[in-house]
Amino acid sequence: MKVDKVTEEKIILGIDPGLNLTGYGVLDISSGRAKLLEAGVIRSVGKTLETRIKDIYDGVREVVATYRPDVMALEQLYSLYKRPETAILMGHARGAICLAAAQSNMRVVSYAATKVKKTMTGSGRAPKDQIQRAVQLELRLPRLPNPPDVADAIAIAFCHFSEARRTLL
Amino acid sequence: MKVDKVTEEKIILGIDPGLNLTGYGVLDISSGRAKLLEAGVIRSVGKTLETRIKDIYDGVREVVATYRPDVMALEQLYSLYKRPETAILMGHARGAICLAAAQSNMRVVSYAATKVKKTMTGSGRAPKDQIQRAVQLELRLPRLPNPPDVADAIAIAFCHFSEARRTLL
Repeated sequence: MKVDKVTEEKIILGIDPGLNLTGYGVLDISSGRAKLLEAGVIRSVGKTLETRIKDIYDGVREVVATYRPDVMALEQLYSLYKRPETAILMGHARGAICLAAAQSNMRVVSYAATKVKKTMTGSGRAPKDQIQRAVQLELRLPRLPNPPDVADAIAIAFCHFSEARRTLL
Repeated sequence: MKVDKVTEEKIILGIDPGLNLTGYGVLDISSGRAKLLEAGVIRSVGKTLETRIKDIYDGVREVVATYRPDVMALEQLYSLYKRPETAILMGHARGAICLAAAQSNMRVVSYAATKVKKTMTGSGRAPKDQIQRAVQLELRLPRLPNPPDVADAIAIAFCHFSEARRTLL
């Protein structure tokens, strides 16, 4: 699908935070289509929670400095309730990522995990490998995005593109 | 109580994170006693979660730059389970604060809220005003530390001092 003008936003950074691996994906939507500029993982090798957070923050800052995204897309906070310990730890990583956004005057948007899955596959409960295949297909990637954290990050960015486009149609 | 040498740590920064008010207290323990150098609150005036996090981060960085603490003392993560939404949001603030610590090579230590209260008052369930009075007494402050966030931050720093001292006696 192609539209003339999606939004003022040209570059979307999608992030899937994790204390070991943080997936990221950068989409260029300036043409009205979503084109993947780069995607990858930031590995946290720090030995303590605070040094891991710094690894994530440094990695995100590097991506932001390279691509100067207009908006950052994250998974919604409240998707994470089932395991409180994990949710609070993820909140730490997410806090440092939000800080990087605020320091570069990027807007932060967030989408429920079910919304992202539904946008990519039609089902809010799609398993990880289905998300990977849908991301590959939608963005015409030569390979399956791997690990799944990368696919999830691209999917979140794509979900924002899709929402922004929908509101203009 | 006075001991000759408490620890290699000379300056302790205690922080009580909050998305509206973050209390902080800086203790100098180089003499073997705990002496309050400064305490106050960082106000978050940002309109979004990410700009509030930036306010907290900037405030903490300023205190760190001024006093160059050796260690940062925080309330333990798992004290916060009762309200998951709040706990996750606080995790965001705590993440940015931990980042500031990692960026200045400060060790982060954490204590359960009940432990902090017990250290200050003898009771793990002491109410806020009792903590404020205990902090005033223990640190010989001319006034009651206010708002309670300030007293809590000082109490967390004092709890670390007390623990460090105990292990050397």
